[in-house]
Amino acid sequence: MQQQISVITLGIADLARSRRFYVEGFGWKPVFENPEIVFYQMNGLMLGTWLGKALAEDMQREAMRSGGFALAHNVPSREAVQPLLDRLAQFGGKMLRPGDAPPHGGFRGYIADPDDHAWEIAWNPAWPISPEGYVSWGT
Amino acid sequence: MQQQISVITLGIADLARSRRFYVEGFGWKPVFENPEIVFYQMNGLMLGTWLGKALAEDMQREAMRSGGFALAHNVPSREAVQPLLDRLAQFGGKMLRPGDAPPHGGFRGYIADPDDHAWEIAWNPAWPISPEGYVSWGT
Repeated sequence: MQQQISVITLGIADLARSRRFYVEGFGWKPVFENPEIVFYQMNGLMLGTWLGKALAEDMQREAMRSGGFALAHNVPSREAVQPLLDRLAQFGGKMLRPGDAPPHGGFRGYIADPDDHAWEIAWNPAWPISPEGYVSWGT
Repeated sequence: MQQQISVITLGIADLARSRRFYVEGFGWKPVFENPEIVFYQMNGLMLGTWLGKALAEDMQREAMRSGGFALAHNVPSREAVQPLLDRLAQFGGKMLRPGDAPPHGGFRGYIADPDDHAWEIAWNPAWPISPEGYVSWGT
């Protein structure tokens, strides 16, 4: 079976509020949008932000507590971590952990998007990122 | 800012139980594992399954209800959807929605992993998948 994830779909409560975080905070450009969903073309997969009620109906499950999860966006240098966390906080993010050095090396912080989905902003020198944004296990 | 997601980290309660779903169910091969985390090299990003307590401590936030989310694994044909859902159910998955046709076309079902993280198994003829597993907006 191909080791492949096609889409990450995040349930959201308010499209404009979420869009502001991703478009103005991260600076990402939607590839498609309508009144209930926004799609972003990412590195080999799609990110969708979809009204939570519609997602729950599609999954046939109410939004519920799962074991928790986090998405990571890696940046090319240690110095790039905190400014991006700060920028995301300006556009609706809620800081969880300001940047610091984890035991396994590198540098990282966490911020939640306006719908409480956690993002880690990290500099991880062990994992190369290609010009296309493809991330690989490096060591 | 590069439109790039480096890692999806799923909080899990039991490493062996989760590993069975991903390794035996999906048939994926870990690139790294230790007693608290398993990493899989995916299509341009990493998937990590990490003990939820460790993830919560790293995020400095308890696992909590977010707006809900789903990961999707797309398959090359309509006929491949239900057999994969059934196989995942055999290895610890909980069926949420057996395969059927959504209003926007294609064919899909949903199954939760042993830690309640939802996976959509989908055939979406509008979104091409490259031989390397890179998924793009097609129409």
